[in-house]
Amino acid sequence: MNQSFEKPRFKIIGSRPVRPDGVEMVTGKAAYGADFKMPGMLVGKVKRSPHAHARILSIEIDKAQALRGVKAVIVGRDLLELDSVEIPNGERTINLGHLSRNCLARDKVLYEGHAVAAVAATSPEIAEQALQLIDVIYEPLPHIIDIEAAMEADAPLLHENLFTKGLESPPKHPSNIASRIQLKRGDVETGLARADVLVERTYKTPSVHQGYIEPHACVASMSSDGQAKIWCSTQGAFMVRTVCAAMAGMDQANLRVIPSEIGGGFGGKTTIYLEPLALALSGKSGRPVKIVMNRDEVFRATGPASGAVMHISLGATVEGQMTAADVELKFQAGAFPGSPVTAAVAMSLALYDIPDFKITGWDVVTNTPKVGAYRAPGAPTATFAVESAVDELAKKLKLDPIELRRKNGVCNGMKAPYGPTYTSICYQETLDAIKSHPHYSAPLGPNQGRGVAAGFWFNFGGDSTAIVCINDDGSATVATGNPDIGGTRATMAMMAAEVLGLPVEKVRAIVADTASIGFSQITGGSRTTFATGIAVVDAASELVTRMKARAALIWDVPENIVDWKDGQAFCREVEKDNLRLTIAEIAKKACHTGGPLSVEVSVNPQGAAPAVGVHLCDVEVDQQTGHVTVLRYTVAQDVGRAIHPGCVEGQLQGGAVQGIGWALNEEYVYDSNGVMENPGFLDYRMPVASDLPMIETILIEMPNPHHPFGVKGVGEVPIVPPLAAVANAVYAATGRRFFNLPLSPPRVHAALKGNG
Amino acid sequence: MNQSFEKPRFKIIGSRPVRPDGVEMVTGKAAYGADFKMPGMLVGKVKRSPHAHARILSIEIDKAQALRGVKAVIVGRDLLELDSVEIPNGERTINLGHLSRNCLARDKVLYEGHAVAAVAATSPEIAEQALQLIDVIYEPLPHIIDIEAAMEADAPLLHENLFTKGLESPPKHPSNIASRIQLKRGDVETGLARADVLVERTYKTPSVHQGYIEPHACVASMSSDGQAKIWCSTQGAFMVRTVCAAMAGMDQANLRVIPSEIGGGFGGKTTIYLEPLALALSGKSGRPVKIVMNRDEVFRATGPASGAVMHISLGATVEGQMTAADVELKFQAGAFPGSPVTAAVAMSLALYDIPDFKITGWDVVTNTPKVGAYRAPGAPTATFAVESAVDELAKKLKLDPIELRRKNGVCNGMKAPYGPTYTSICYQETLDAIKSHPHYSAPLGPNQGRGVAAGFWFNFGGDSTAIVCINDDGSATVATGNPDIGGTRATMAMMAAEVLGLPVEKVRAIVADTASIGFSQITGGSRTTFATGIAVVDAASELVTRMKARAALIWDVPENIVDWKDGQAFCREVEKDNLRLTIAEIAKKACHTGGPLSVEVSVNPQGAAPAVGVHLCDVEVDQQTGHVTVLRYTVAQDVGRAIHPGCVEGQLQGGAVQGIGWALNEEYVYDSNGVMENPGFLDYRMPVASDLPMIETILIEMPNPHHPFGVKGVGEVPIVPPLAAVANAVYAATGRRFFNLPLSPPRVHAALKGNG
Repeated sequence: MNQSFEKPRFKIIGSRPVRPDGVEMVTGKAAYGADFKMPGMLVGKVKRSPHAHARILSIEIDKAQALRGVKAVIVGRDLLELDSVEIPNGERTINLGHLSRNCLARDKVLYEGHAVAAVAATSPEIAEQALQLIDVIYEPLPHIIDIEAAMEADAPLLHENLFTKGLESPPKHPSNIASRIQLKRGDVETGLARADVLVERTYKTPSVHQGYIEPHACVASMSSDGQAKIWCSTQGAFMVRTVCAAMAGMDQANLRVIPSEIGGGFGGKTTIYLEPLALALSGKSGRPVKIVMNRDEVFRATGPASGAVMHISLGATVEGQMTAADVELKFQAGAFPGSPVTAAVAMSLALYDIPDFKITGWDVVTNTPKVGAYRAPGAPTATFAVESAVDELAKKLKLDPIELRRKNGVCNGMKAPYGPTYTSICYQETLDAIKSHPHYSAPLGPNQGRGVAAGFWFNFGGDSTAIVCINDDGSATVATGNPDIGGTRATMAMMAAEVLGLPVEKVRAIVADTASIGFSQITGGSRTTFATGIAVVDAASELVTRMKARAALIWDVPENIVDWKDGQAFCREVEKDNLRLTIAEIAKKACHTGGPLSVEVSVNPQGAAPAVGVHLCDVEVDQQTGHVTVLRYTVAQDVGRAIHPGCVEGQLQGGAVQGIGWALNEEYVYDSNGVMENPGFLDYRMPVASDLPMIETILIEMPNPHHPFGVKGVGEVPIVPPLAAVANAVYAATGRRFFNLPLSPPRVHAALKGNG
Repeated sequence: MNQSFEKPRFKIIGSRPVRPDGVEMVTGKAAYGADFKMPGMLVGKVKRSPHAHARILSIEIDKAQALRGVKAVIVGRDLLELDSVEIPNGERTINLGHLSRNCLARDKVLYEGHAVAAVAATSPEIAEQALQLIDVIYEPLPHIIDIEAAMEADAPLLHENLFTKGLESPPKHPSNIASRIQLKRGDVETGLARADVLVERTYKTPSVHQGYIEPHACVASMSSDGQAKIWCSTQGAFMVRTVCAAMAGMDQANLRVIPSEIGGGFGGKTTIYLEPLALALSGKSGRPVKIVMNRDEVFRATGPASGAVMHISLGATVEGQMTAADVELKFQAGAFPGSPVTAAVAMSLALYDIPDFKITGWDVVTNTPKVGAYRAPGAPTATFAVESAVDELAKKLKLDPIELRRKNGVCNGMKAPYGPTYTSICYQETLDAIKSHPHYSAPLGPNQGRGVAAGFWFNFGGDSTAIVCINDDGSATVATGNPDIGGTRATMAMMAAEVLGLPVEKVRAIVADTASIGFSQITGGSRTTFATGIAVVDAASELVTRMKARAALIWDVPENIVDWKDGQAFCREVEKDNLRLTIAEIAKKACHTGGPLSVEVSVNPQGAAPAVGVHLCDVEVDQQTGHVTVLRYTVAQDVGRAIHPGCVEGQLQGGAVQGIGWALNEEYVYDSNGVMENPGFLDYRMPVASDLPMIETILIEMPNPHHPFGVKGVGEVPIVPPLAAVANAVYAATGRRFFNLPLSPPRVHAALKGNG
């Protein structure tokens, strides 16, 4: 289903061509991170901490190094000492000291699975044996995983030099609280006092993993003259170059990063784990080194989404007008500072026009893996709390939950909690789309319930570069610096084809490496189709301008009487009215009219419009087992303009599925020693196709005025509403309100039995 | 030794940094054509004709196809029918009909080694066995290898539809003469009549091979959706794309060609042999296919330089003023039209100001492999004849051979035989450099002799694209579409570094593939440092302009008071006199001042200046065996500006060595059936390091005004003079004039014994 507010007649935008990367992927030809081989390549493996928190007293590597077939062993000190360097990477700032210590521990291990050493050997068996021969002497320390316990003044400290940032007065003692951030409007106390009805609740969500199919993998090759290459599975080859070059003390020009095909990332591949290790091992051994994680390592040692504890006080008048909200978000950062609590604070109340609010966020380190980005980082967690509270408020007010949201929902012209004024927000229209959908009023059976929830993601732009070339034969190629995680080869080709007036099959897009194209930020933030798309459209438009000039030269007429339509230049002069030149004809003469037709454009565009989604979920709860079955699920989302509606629908469906998994089953389970108990897909339960109904999608197309085709980011917001939508549906089915995720059978079963 | 007419103070141009590709190459890490592997890759092999000329009556492939492990078999009809298509590729026109029939014969085989079928199988052994199972029934035809015999009216015809082009009246009958071309000035008969002294001679040179170390190799992978990739060793990835896409009937956008490291080409890798076969086999089998030639195949089935028969009449007055020259060049094209006789005609008299001349060229097909380009194609052969005649003329006139050349040599302002007026030619200065060099007057021993000869190559520009990016940390990358055959990664980085004001180690250059950069013609013609260099310099200059603008933005001053020097922007305003921003500082803020700093430039520049070389050679001739030893060898060449003198010297030395091999030993030897008898480096004798003295070089730097740093092409002209220089030295040592090459021991020995 597709609602469009404006229907310009595009030829290609909005169509559904076969994805250009499809055949390679489904036939197994696509080369992922682990598929790259080099002559003389060694196998790298990583030794990891068995302790959740310990001081490293010594690491003895002599025996491992002496093993026949072992070519290099590295420990933390083999990466550059980077205690407090922060380097810019486009607009992101990366704390390299933390990052390098996360890749390879130095004085302390901070979580079970934390890397302490790595080896490169001629076979996996020898590498494994070498790991056994590395003798690490630890002094175990008390560990802390619970967020609120970690915030206590007497909690065991992860970092003795960590002082809370953002407090009103500078802290006297170090703590596990890395920072506090706060947004405020009006006076929350007064606002809450004005409320007739109040919901005051505490919510908890667990840490969950992105669950990408492809584990992290890379090959690094360092020459003795200091030039190096890395092949890896990443969402950002330039990010890999920036951080690896810095950790190795190299110029970026000496490091070429070539992104492989990527088997899922969802934010989890916006940072690095193995790459600097492989690079250092290659430097020591003089040979290429490949390291591939297994699933156990992915769970124990890569960055999941933050677990959180959240307190909400939400007040409204009897008429359903929200008066105030006090939101406190305590986010688990894992071993090093940097949870997505800042985004969570910014997004949590972004859909509501509340006169008085206070949102406080805490970034808390714990003895768990450093958290990573996961699709709309921070927003699903905070939204679970807010949208659960809104649902409860609607019930208390006896208002239709969509009506309550309509009454209090933001519109264009209102100010977002995090600063800007909305100019392209479609919350009301998206709520209407769900309300008027047949699903909203479909009958339900016994033990069934229906829940609704909304979600917001601000989206961003950022640095992007694109190169568009017209080939000899009039076909075209598009290169960008953005790994394709969700169909961007298709959408980039489509946008270029639309501008050029070529059939889309004549335009092919590739992902270029870091030496072949200008800087491009990671694929993420729902920025690529927006920002990189602008670079592509600008480059293609410049090519049209140049091709008109070439046609003018060929015809010997002034440029200003040459027009462009449907992939052809034509002449407006009456007596030359029959003059036409196709792209192929102009391309054939390019060398005689000034040289090849190729344009590179770099941009850092503003105007990425926020995305809004409203999800509707029906569940049935098994009274005997507590098992929750999702029966029906509908996603409505303002997508700006769907370049390739199939890709957009896939994003909406995929985000919903991941959110449903988060709601129902996924969680990191630790034993009393801080050791993860479920580091595999048998025990860490993600939904599979047979667990779920087909996710229905409603694309609402309100074009973003800041993109030439109206694109808004679409990939992240679909994971934001499901946690609350499912929980609200379970409430509707059972009459029991759940404040903790996941809604796994044991928890639901206990609640149904009155023990929850 | 280095003579420079102007010494601007460059920081990097003219220095000798370590080559950035050196370590990879000498440590064996560089990946050449045969080094690429893909999962599931098959081995391809080619069945070749045992006959020099035969009709193919039938090809039976069923038995081969039925062999277990054989996944595809192709014959000529599996390539697109392309009888008479010519396609432009930049400024070159390629006859695809001939090219496809050269890659895979259809109705006839035209030389021994001509490909007739190809197979792809799971192992080399199975592929070899499959070749044996292919049953080809031939009707042998009379073959013809001798050029003049092939020109006879009753010679066996290779192509029944080949009619000579360029005759005064259209031919009535087909022949083996593909075309005649002629350049004239004045009236040659009158001019020759005016001469007091006349040299009239016939010269013969054999076909010789470029002898690159790396045999042709490629991997092709075709997907079922029609998208494909080719990795191969080539001098022009875009050329491979153009011809392979056309032969496969694909859009160029659907074919990505990735050039490997190249282990020598010298012109021999400016065309294709295996690539369309591998592509077709991959299309049929659905799997990637690798084909690698062995040395035998390289000799029998790839394109050597033309053999030739040349007649010269050269006249002069007793004062040594040349009056006229009548030159006739009969060039062997091999199996299909297209010898370099056109270039030979254009270059043969390019160094002499002769009032009356006629140069006639004949392009003749023979039952030998289709000739390929080999360093200054056509010029060494024609120059052997002309410079031998000039030497003989000097002897007859009792003039110093350099004086005769000085007297008749061209200067700026004179018109070249092939049209243009010289504006940047340095023949006189190059002659002077040799004459004033100690080598010219060094004493000689018994059986020793000294020869001199000059050479000319016109050089060209052509389509080139370059991308220069400034990285986050202030280092820079340069991408071009030109495979590096002679150090262009070094020279491109040096030119960019000079413009940007960066240390050269902070600038790294790569060779980009066809999907990552705009069209670029082949690396060849001595065009790359000139034309691609201009694209690099233009892109770097545009970056300087942009960085000045970014600095102005950061300082909030007008752009026109920002200057650039030594990699820094500075402000001319007095009160802001201390303002400085390095590239790294500007780069760090790039995202906040407009986005990444990256520029692509495509050019097709005019103004490639011709190159002139004068070579001086001392030999000693063993009276017992006829063996010629080169004792001393000096090359003087106008190089415009030597960006990296070490790379330039290497070109001069390498060209001289290849020319010496051509002069002394190299030749294709055929038996009476037209079967090559010496297809290996044991029997085809190329000079090795121990055969030769160190080649001394004199770089004469007269900057080319049409290149920002004064570059002229340097790579080709050094192979032009040696054939004559060696022959003239052997004459000086023995008193015997040789008109046929090579000067191998049997031929020299026979001549010394009075039988030559």
